[in-house]
Amino acid sequence: MLKHFKSSSRMKGLPPGTLIHIGEQKTQQVKMSVMEYNEGHFAEKDIIDINEALSYKKTSNVTWLNVIGLHDTAAISKIGDGYGIHSLVLEDIVNTAQRPKTEDFEEYIYLVLKMLTYDENKQEIDVEQVSFILGRNFIISFQEKEGDVFDVIRDRIRKSKGRIRKMKTDYLIYALLDAIVDNYFIILEKTGDRIEDMDKALAENPTPKILQSIHKLKQDVLFLRKSIWPLREAVNSLVHSESGLINESINMFFRDVYDHTIQVIDTIETYRDMLSGMLDVYLSVVSNKMNEIMKVLTIIATIFIPLTFIAGIYGMNFEYMPELKWKFGYFGIWIVIIVVTVAMILYFRKKKWL
Amino acid sequence: MLKHFKSSSRMKGLPPGTLIHIGEQKTQQVKMSVMEYNEGHFAEKDIIDINEALSYKKTSNVTWLNVIGLHDTAAISKIGDGYGIHSLVLEDIVNTAQRPKTEDFEEYIYLVLKMLTYDENKQEIDVEQVSFILGRNFIISFQEKEGDVFDVIRDRIRKSKGRIRKMKTDYLIYALLDAIVDNYFIILEKTGDRIEDMDKALAENPTPKILQSIHKLKQDVLFLRKSIWPLREAVNSLVHSESGLINESINMFFRDVYDHTIQVIDTIETYRDMLSGMLDVYLSVVSNKMNEIMKVLTIIATIFIPLTFIAGIYGMNFEYMPELKWKFGYFGIWIVIIVVTVAMILYFRKKKWL
Amino acid sequence: MLKHFKSSSRMKGLPPGTLIHIGEQKTQQVKMSVMEYNEGHFAEKDIIDINEALSYKKTSNVTWLNVIGLHDTAAISKIGDGYGIHSLVLEDIVNTAQRPKTEDFEEYIYLVLKMLTYDENKQEIDVEQVSFILGRNFIISFQEKEGDVFDVIRDRIRKSKGRIRKMKTDYLIYALLDAIVDNYFIILEKTGDRIEDMDKALAENPTPKILQSIHKLKQDVLFLRKSIWPLREAVNSLVHSESGLINESINMFFRDVYDHTIQVIDTIETYRDMLSGMLDVYLSVVSNKMNEIMKVLTIIATIFIPLTFIAGIYGMNFEYMPELKWKFGYFGIWIVIIVVTVAMILYFRKKKWL
Amino acid sequence: MLKHFKSSSRMKGLPPGTLIHIGEQKTQQVKMSVMEYNEGHFAEKDIIDINEALSYKKTSNVTWLNVIGLHDTAAISKIGDGYGIHSLVLEDIVNTAQRPKTEDFEEYIYLVLKMLTYDENKQEIDVEQVSFILGRNFIISFQEKEGDVFDVIRDRIRKSKGRIRKMKTDYLIYALLDAIVDNYFIILEKTGDRIEDMDKALAENPTPKILQSIHKLKQDVLFLRKSIWPLREAVNSLVHSESGLINESINMFFRDVYDHTIQVIDTIETYRDMLSGMLDVYLSVVSNKMNEIMKVLTIIATIFIPLTFIAGIYGMNFEYMPELKWKFGYFGIWIVIIVVTVAMILYFRKKKWL
Amino acid sequence: MLKHFKSSSRMKGLPPGTLIHIGEQKTQQVKMSVMEYNEGHFAEKDIIDINEALSYKKTSNVTWLNVIGLHDTAAISKIGDGYGIHSLVLEDIVNTAQRPKTEDFEEYIYLVLKMLTYDENKQEIDVEQVSFILGRNFIISFQEKEGDVFDVIRDRIRKSKGRIRKMKTDYLIYALLDAIVDNYFIILEKTGDRIEDMDKALAENPTPKILQSIHKLKQDVLFLRKSIWPLREAVNSLVHSESGLINESINMFFRDVYDHTIQVIDTIETYRDMLSGMLDVYLSVVSNKMNEIMKVLTIIATIFIPLTFIAGIYGMNFEYMPELKWKFGYFGIWIVIIVVTVAMILYFRKKKWL
Repeated sequence: MLKHFKSSSRMKGLPPGTLIHIGEQKTQQVKMSVMEYNEGHFAEKDIIDINEALSYKKTSNVTWLNVIGLHDTAAISKIGDGYGIHSLVLEDIVNTAQRPKTEDFEEYIYLVLKMLTYDENKQEIDVEQVSFILGRNFIISFQEKEGDVFDVIRDRIRKSKGRIRKMKTDYLIYALLDAIVDNYFIILEKTGDRIEDMDKALAENPTPKILQSIHKLKQDVLFLRKSIWPLREAVNSLVHSESGLINESINMFFRDVYDHTIQVIDTIETYRDMLSGMLDVYLSVVSNKMNEIMKVLTIIATIFIPLTFIAGIYGMNFEYMPELKWKFGYFGIWIVIIVVTVAMILYFRKKKWL
Repeated sequence: MLKHFKSSSRMKGLPPGTLIHIGEQKTQQVKMSVMEYNEGHFAEKDIIDINEALSYKKTSNVTWLNVIGLHDTAAISKIGDGYGIHSLVLEDIVNTAQRPKTEDFEEYIYLVLKMLTYDENKQEIDVEQVSFILGRNFIISFQEKEGDVFDVIRDRIRKSKGRIRKMKTDYLIYALLDAIVDNYFIILEKTGDRIEDMDKALAENPTPKILQSIHKLKQDVLFLRKSIWPLREAVNSLVHSESGLINESINMFFRDVYDHTIQVIDTIETYRDMLSGMLDVYLSVVSNKMNEIMKVLTIIATIFIPLTFIAGIYGMNFEYMPELKWKFGYFGIWIVIIVVTVAMILYFRKKKWL
Repeated sequence: MLKHFKSSSRMKGLPPGTLIHIGEQKTQQVKMSVMEYNEGHFAEKDIIDINEALSYKKTSNVTWLNVIGLHDTAAISKIGDGYGIHSLVLEDIVNTAQRPKTEDFEEYIYLVLKMLTYDENKQEIDVEQVSFILGRNFIISFQEKEGDVFDVIRDRIRKSKGRIRKMKTDYLIYALLDAIVDNYFIILEKTGDRIEDMDKALAENPTPKILQSIHKLKQDVLFLRKSIWPLREAVNSLVHSESGLINESINMFFRDVYDHTIQVIDTIETYRDMLSGMLDVYLSVVSNKMNEIMKVLTIIATIFIPLTFIAGIYGMNFEYMPELKWKFGYFGIWIVIIVVTVAMILYFRKKKWL
Repeated sequence: MLKHFKSSSRMKGLPPGTLIHIGEQKTQQVKMSVMEYNEGHFAEKDIIDINEALSYKKTSNVTWLNVIGLHDTAAISKIGDGYGIHSLVLEDIVNTAQRPKTEDFEEYIYLVLKMLTYDENKQEIDVEQVSFILGRNFIISFQEKEGDVFDVIRDRIRKSKGRIRKMKTDYLIYALLDAIVDNYFIILEKTGDRIEDMDKALAENPTPKILQSIHKLKQDVLFLRKSIWPLREAVNSLVHSESGLINESINMFFRDVYDHTIQVIDTIETYRDMLSGMLDVYLSVVSNKMNEIMKVLTIIATIFIPLTFIAGIYGMNFEYMPELKWKFGYFGIWIVIIVVTVAMILYFRKKKWL
Repeated sequence: MLKHFKSSSRMKGLPPGTLIHIGEQKTQQVKMSVMEYNEGHFAEKDIIDINEALSYKKTSNVTWLNVIGLHDTAAISKIGDGYGIHSLVLEDIVNTAQRPKTEDFEEYIYLVLKMLTYDENKQEIDVEQVSFILGRNFIISFQEKEGDVFDVIRDRIRKSKGRIRKMKTDYLIYALLDAIVDNYFIILEKTGDRIEDMDKALAENPTPKILQSIHKLKQDVLFLRKSIWPLREAVNSLVHSESGLINESINMFFRDVYDHTIQVIDTIETYRDMLSGMLDVYLSVVSNKMNEIMKVLTIIATIFIPLTFIAGIYGMNFEYMPELKWKFGYFGIWIVIIVVTVAMILYFRKKKWL
């Protein structure tokens, strides 16, 4: 998880607007595909030649251009130029260390956020940066790798499910955003399960391993928080955009996404509080265990050390030790031993150690 | 308690506005009942046919339609369509993971909040989501299961107690809200009792079990906080609604509810602080107990280990050990033992360990 | 202290505005008294008949009606009706679980706050709710029990000390508020003394009892905070009241009270920080003590356990043990013992344990 | 330090505006001195007769009247009356428990703040309350005792250094404020030195004494914070005063003072964080030491207790113990002892305790 | 690191505007150089005579005057006078204890911030104060020592890379600011690496040394926070400057810098949280280790102390001890020993200590 926190620095000395891909390369080759539709019409194709991608700028249908892979900065630069996107925005698109934000240009809106998926194999949260350019009739989305989160939207477009085919780009951007935010709930559910498992393990048998897990979970939650927290503000400024690219009639859909985002943040904060509480419990349990260990040691030592001393006394080899010659000396010693032991046990009872 | 924190995710891939019931199903069958009244008139009946429920839309009397059970999404969808409610609102109504909020549509206001009850059997707080649609002449309430919190209001309407029959839907929504918030105080009282019991137990005999209880209580309080905190904002935007559905003359009643909500939140915050304080005390008490155990061990060991050594010396079998032959050797050893013991005890006294 | 935190719930099911006394009954019988004055005139009397209390509504002099005892809801209801006070306000007056607040009605202002006194006998802070109704020419104050905080004001009115007789009700409400806030400083002083005593005791001899005291003090400070914190806001909205009941020329007196309130809150916050600090110190001191105990145990055990082993060796009864027959065997053993002991002591010196 | 936190309460029952000196009396007798100047003119004298002090009210030159000693409330009352100062302000001047604030009257501005000096002898921070009345052509300053912080300003006036003689009272109040705030940096430097010393001592040899020092420093920093924090707001409202007593051309000087105040507050916050960090380190170091002590004890005990047991076995006096008669029995025991010891040491190595 | 926190106080008693260099002297001699350019023209030279530096004030080309070394206050004063800079600004320039801020004069803007570099040799963060005066056609920058952060900008100007030569001073100030903020990411990366290393070391073998490192890192992060946090505000007021010195078309570049600053602050906050988490883990690990040590001690002691007692009993020299004469006495003792040992081990198993 830690790696996600590390900031990467731009290549020093380069003029602003120079495209440098920062982040892991997660796909082999840049892939592009386009969907173009209105209520009656639908077309979908993969794009090989970048020039083809540029041809959709003037279409009057809704066009969604999806770009997978950010490392080919030349291609992205060309698309950017074709669609009139500012070089600083392009720089942000290829730098995967962005925090979620909305930037409002008059001609288009730039929205960047994090897509999160839980990798069951590696048992960790996977993060991917997704950027959107929302123009008058087009949306360009930039992803780091192929993912299935958007597939359900593609399906809805293809099959004309719901109202999506009747709506404009503002509804499409909502649908994409909604898909990403909905996906956060799956991460939260997963995280909630892990917390619940840990809570149970904590009650049953708290091992040092649990501490490591709590620590890891705390870092995960910290990371979720860092990735999602700024999204609230980003969605908010998207809604209040003055560009006219988002129709007022759509507002209530964005308000819904906004509510979901707050719900996610709320749950994250609750998780943080719970994990802190679990750490406290863990420490207390460890401390209690220590107490119990000390009690056993103390009881054993406190009973037997004095007895051993008594035995030691009569193991001495002094020539003149009258007790050794007493007929009931040995028997008497046993009585002393029993009395001492019983007294000790009563004392511990009183102290509530037994 | 933990389960309440777990977020549930919508069925991925479905278009927004698709009704999916999220949450436990708490009742067998959807039940509907309606109350219709004005100052002089009163009618009440259970509704079997949904179409009947729709007929109240145009009535000029105050109509309160209560729906129990959220899992029959078809029925809820039909009601929603009949009363012209947005599909996103219907989606929220059947998803029990909402945080309290008010949404202001021009024709109606949507209010969702949590009803809390303390389940004496399970010894835990029970949560239920309640949604209200406040229209011009009607209120529709959606509950997860049958509960008695609203019964007192029904009674007041039936018997025309207080001013309720003379007032409009805005007063009715206030009365319902007030009943729910008043109920929070019972939960708080219960929680306060549990904290008080624990504080007493902590002073008398702090066991590891208490730690578990503090932990559980903290999670309960955390959960209360999460459920009630956003209500403040929701009540506030209800009052400032621009829909004209709430008459200004009613404002002071809502202000009263608002004050109560703040009072509840205030008390929750105080409980949090107190529970933190109790955890500190618990840890200190445990640590003190450990100290005492260590002191006993140390005193016993420190006195007897040197004495055992002395006894060990004269238990050696060297041929030439002059002391063994001294007449008062054994007697002298006892003097040494007593002197060492007394010196130790004085030392411990000085250290304030005895 | 804990009991002050417990919230009480209204009788469920009653219509809003139903007067139910919530809280302890602190006085036997409701007592009423009235003061009526202007610059030249002064009259004071106890009131037996409630109707008499109502007769002061139309007087052009400044009238201060003081009601002691909140359990006689019938009487309070009658006064409230006579003076045209909203039933929700009356409900708040008799419910002692209010947080300090100001409510501005056009005809009158409702102000509720907490009067605090330190009960030397019970060694705890005593809380009483005081409500004020500020009208055009009258003030009605509601107290839970007889107290002397207002006596000095009565005296000033009687003897026409200061400007009070020349001023209107707005100055009188200021004077009453000022008396209550001034009284907070006495509580703070008392609390400060207790903290100082504890700090001294902590430095000298930290016992587990101190922990209990810190815990209790923390709860007291928490309680002070809860009682006084909202007053800031209440005084502020009193000053900014739009009712015209408070003359602008009086503002600077209220600003003075406001400053005092902030000073009180400031000191409370500082106390909280100090108590947290003291808890840390206490825990460290306990931990240091433990360390010292462990050191003594370790030194004694580390020196004598090996020596006892050596003695044990030569206490064995093997037939062939050449050392036992050496002439200087016993003498040599003593040398070994001394060497080991000295080596151990040097080691402990190096470790800075001695 | 603790004493600074204790709040003092006004004499209860006295009408507002009654002057009561609250605080320690720090000087024998009230001393007054006056400076009067413009660009060309300069006069300075000590004042014996209070009436003389009043004569400067109408002068057209800049007049600075300095009053040292707050216990002579009669004198201060007379000055206050002469200059038309509100009695509540006079009450604040003689009550040394004020928090820094600015109060804007139309005719004059009242500014109160804390002057801090580090007393090298007592090793503690000394606090003195300083009040200013800024009028059209005069400034009256009230101090608790004679101090040298203002001497540099007097010197600049006398010798006409810098622009001070060319400017009005607004520049003079700035110069005085600036001198006080500059002095805070000396306190901070001192405190920084103490923290640094402690950090070094902590790294070298953490003794319980250091804990006491950290605790004391934390209280000092807490006190600094309480004294300086509200000054930010006070300076801010001084700048935004609507009285016209402060010329806009001077604003940038006040902004400078404001920046310095923020810098001071910033450093105080950093000190707080650092002291918390040091406490953590101290506790960890103590805990590590404990660990080490335990390790030594455990190693010694774990090696020798089993060995002593072996020796004990062959010290028994059973008649039939074949080993005792073996020729190499004693030799064999030594081999067993060495094997056990080596095994133990290897075990500890593996555990990284050695 | 600690030294960076220590505040320095101005020479007391000097009039405001007196230039006193506060801070370490980091360079031998003041060096000045100038760059003058427009789209077609470019000139660069080192300046020896200060009068030459003043001649650029009226040039219509973009002029960047860089001054290295702040200790020669006479030179800086002369430049300041020549360019009409307020003496308080000059005072701030030579006092290296400033917090980042923007001050807007009508003729010029003053911007001060911190340049950070990681010194690999000393293993610590190096801080340098950089001040900018942004005028109509000129920028004056003041540095403490020669550094290479600006070299890349110089290079871009010289080689006319990017748009820099076509733009005005507002773009140049952006470029300089951007270079400094970009450099922060390198510090963050370095710090992130150190945290990651520590996290790994913590998992493998937590030594007390790690505690020292966490402590040091926490102080470093605290210092970063203090140095960068106010920059957010400074950049913000730079953008909203009303002087007209910054063209609106440049705003989006500043917004980019602003975003980067927030990203930096975000990461710093995350680092703080992570370091707190690591401290918790460290403490828990130490506590677990202690537990384990105690367990070993307790197991060994609990098994062997009773056994040694048994051996001690039969080492006594009583004349009448029947067991000693039994044929299988010795054999029986061994059985007892084995039984006791096995019982103990089973008990420990049950307790989950083994």
